[in-house]
Amino acid sequence: MKKVKIYVTLRESVLDPQGSAVKGSLVNMGYKEVEDVRIGKYLELLISDTDRDIDTLVKEMCEKLLANTVIEDYRFEIEEAH
Amino acid sequence: MKKVKIYVTLRESVLDPQGSAVKGSLVNMGYKEVEDVRIGKYLELLISDTDRDIDTLVKEMCEKLLANTVIEDYRFEIEEAH
Repeated sequence: MKKVKIYVTLRESVLDPQGSAVKGSLVNMGYKEVEDVRIGKYLELLISDTDRDIDTLVKEMCEKLLANTVIEDYRFEIEEAH
Repeated sequence: MKKVKIYVTLRESVLDPQGSAVKGSLVNMGYKEVEDVRIGKYLELLISDTDRDIDTLVKEMCEKLLANTVIEDYRFEIEEAH
């Protein structure tokens, strides 16, 4: 069994209105040190043992469903699940 | 300048319907190895240098705004931004 942690973030060139709103709120709450906020997705997948190459599998899932690669980047880590 | 990476995840006892939907889609697409999917938020904050303790600051921001601690857990990493 493997645990896969996937981080999906907006590409740097893409505006992040949700992040801007959160940044505005934090500054209004008195956290004037906050310069920038970007918001992305964090996914945890549990994948059972398989003959297929897990790296390839996860890459396919990201490209086909989990990330919109026109505006988003993704990266992932695979670890042994206990 | 510091870069703070914050991971907000649903507590284990809380149902994740969005994760279940994604899991169902992945299985339907042929990724039958996928046992479980949990979806959370990933935030990147840029924080300018300050006299205040940054660890305390980030904890406060999470408790007050970024996470709903009734149903969500959070953890964060602070690194030097370049």
